[in-house]
Amino acid sequence: MTQTFDIAVIGATGTVGETLVQVLEELEFPVGTLHLLASSESAGHSVPFRGKNVRVREVDEFDFSKVQLAFFAAGPAVTLSFAPRATAAGCGLIDLSGALPADQAPQVVPEANPHVLSTLKKPFQLSSPSPSATALAVVLAPLRGLLDIQRVSVTANLAVSAQGREAVSELARQTAELLNVRPLEPKFFDRQMAFNLLAQVGTPDAQGHTSLEKRLVHELRAVLGMPLLKISVTCVQAPVFFGDSLSVSLQLGAAVNLEAVNQALEAAPGVELVEAGDYPTAVGDAVGQDVVYVGRVRAGVDDPAELNLWLASDNVRKGAALNAVQLAQLLIKDLV
Amino acid sequence: MTQTFDIAVIGATGTVGETLVQVLEELEFPVGTLHLLASSESAGHSVPFRGKNVRVREVDEFDFSKVQLAFFAAGPAVTLSFAPRATAAGCGLIDLSGALPADQAPQVVPEANPHVLSTLKKPFQLSSPSPSATALAVVLAPLRGLLDIQRVSVTANLAVSAQGREAVSELARQTAELLNVRPLEPKFFDRQMAFNLLAQVGTPDAQGHTSLEKRLVHELRAVLGMPLLKISVTCVQAPVFFGDSLSVSLQLGAAVNLEAVNQALEAAPGVELVEAGDYPTAVGDAVGQDVVYVGRVRAGVDDPAELNLWLASDNVRKGAALNAVQLAQLLIKDLV
Repeated sequence: MTQTFDIAVIGATGTVGETLVQVLEELEFPVGTLHLLASSESAGHSVPFRGKNVRVREVDEFDFSKVQLAFFAAGPAVTLSFAPRATAAGCGLIDLSGALPADQAPQVVPEANPHVLSTLKKPFQLSSPSPSATALAVVLAPLRGLLDIQRVSVTANLAVSAQGREAVSELARQTAELLNVRPLEPKFFDRQMAFNLLAQVGTPDAQGHTSLEKRLVHELRAVLGMPLLKISVTCVQAPVFFGDSLSVSLQLGAAVNLEAVNQALEAAPGVELVEAGDYPTAVGDAVGQDVVYVGRVRAGVDDPAELNLWLASDNVRKGAALNAVQLAQLLIKDLV
Repeated sequence: MTQTFDIAVIGATGTVGETLVQVLEELEFPVGTLHLLASSESAGHSVPFRGKNVRVREVDEFDFSKVQLAFFAAGPAVTLSFAPRATAAGCGLIDLSGALPADQAPQVVPEANPHVLSTLKKPFQLSSPSPSATALAVVLAPLRGLLDIQRVSVTANLAVSAQGREAVSELARQTAELLNVRPLEPKFFDRQMAFNLLAQVGTPDAQGHTSLEKRLVHELRAVLGMPLLKISVTCVQAPVFFGDSLSVSLQLGAAVNLEAVNQALEAAPGVELVEAGDYPTAVGDAVGQDVVYVGRVRAGVDDPAELNLWLASDNVRKGAALNAVQLAQLLIKDLV
């Protein structure tokens, strides 16, 4: 008889939470009892799991000693409120909100730094990095040993689904209004999102950086184990429902061997390299998939010490829900 | 009495050509007779100019000795076919297609390298750079003397209008099909363009670079007078009708003085700097305007020798038609 684990998913009605429940089922994670939790607003809804509808309950009233593992898939405030209770109850946790400091809940991507898991103490606290950092880590991890990476420049064109269902509805609504030549009334976004790009995702700090950009820099360094790596990043809100598109340029200490790069990416777990001349797209390739797609692998226009890449990744699935469940799969080996 | 100039616009029915005619009128360019020319397919249409409809005629049959200046606003093939005839007839020309080599028709942006005009011999041959290179040149020119720029990384999220009217219609059609849950049938683009980003604009060469990317590198170096500048570039097709959005990261030889950068951009001709904390968008700010909008001016997350910028520019107007007419305004001082 297989051992099972009682699991809590906090933020179960959100885009990531709902996908996380799907992934638990698809990967046949040995779930005993599944507890779906959310704020009082969303409590009472239900989410399908293994052919049944599981009712979503209020996280406020939940007794974390009932479960061995909790996924925090709501916002940072929810993690900060309830993670201490989970830990105090002896419950392991995987946070997807970025709320917990790295020394408390290290960021892990199974394809990049799984060795961190063996250093954890019970009850486990882990962070699943932001979707862009996760996608970048999956692709750069197999290149770490091969290239002398001196700087990574990233423009991350992000899907609106990272901001939840309201953002998805608003992009659809704005688009329909514009196509029907009706006056545009932005609500969720503070300006026109349809047929437009917004240069800023979230509020910038006094230095002009958004928390998402800072998070990406710190997470990517941590996961790659390259604490001094220089990373330039701009996170852009694109008029795309699902799937992130990352334009990446690496500056190297020596001329790039493209054949070796292609071979390393071909062999890398979690990576799908598209053939030269073609390129992947978020919507056409990445959405719904368990891999990060990579294309446009090329040196600089006349700089052989430059490597350019284009990444397409499902921000909700590969960048968040799947990464968290894969972490849980590795963790339960130790929980047994 | 003001001297007037007889002008030809080749490609007059295209998005850039039509805007060019508008800009000639708006800027009260001293046009004598305006000859609108296009391929045999578009001949017979008419385009409004100074309250009248000007009939578009076939470029094949045009006698270039009738005009002092010709704008080539069609594709590279048209320029290659007809530019020699224009020059042989003693007609000055401004090419917007990128077809002519730099030593024959130097690339000029008035805000960046107007001094080149004084070195030209008659009949003048000039190139107006690609819209992205033009926008970048306008913004980087005032920073050249201030910063030790060692590398420029650009992800250029380009509007579909750069590919003409068919591309604009296709984005609208694809979007409507998807919103109405009808099957998507890509025609102009080879895949889903609506709610998606395409990583490649045009066909890549054996090294993986598109001609637009190579053009941007070479043009920007030429216009800034920095032939050795390292430039990483990825040109992306965004689901945006009009207006380019450029994510730019500069690597500098020393820590950036942001106050000095902001002052230089405030004072620069052709640049509109938005206030810190805010950011411009292609659709909300740049479209229809004569300036390149700049925002998100910031150093690196923890690299003071990095300068990041976000540019929004009307690709058809500021990036092409207006730049060409501004060149003509400078040229006619010498034509007199």
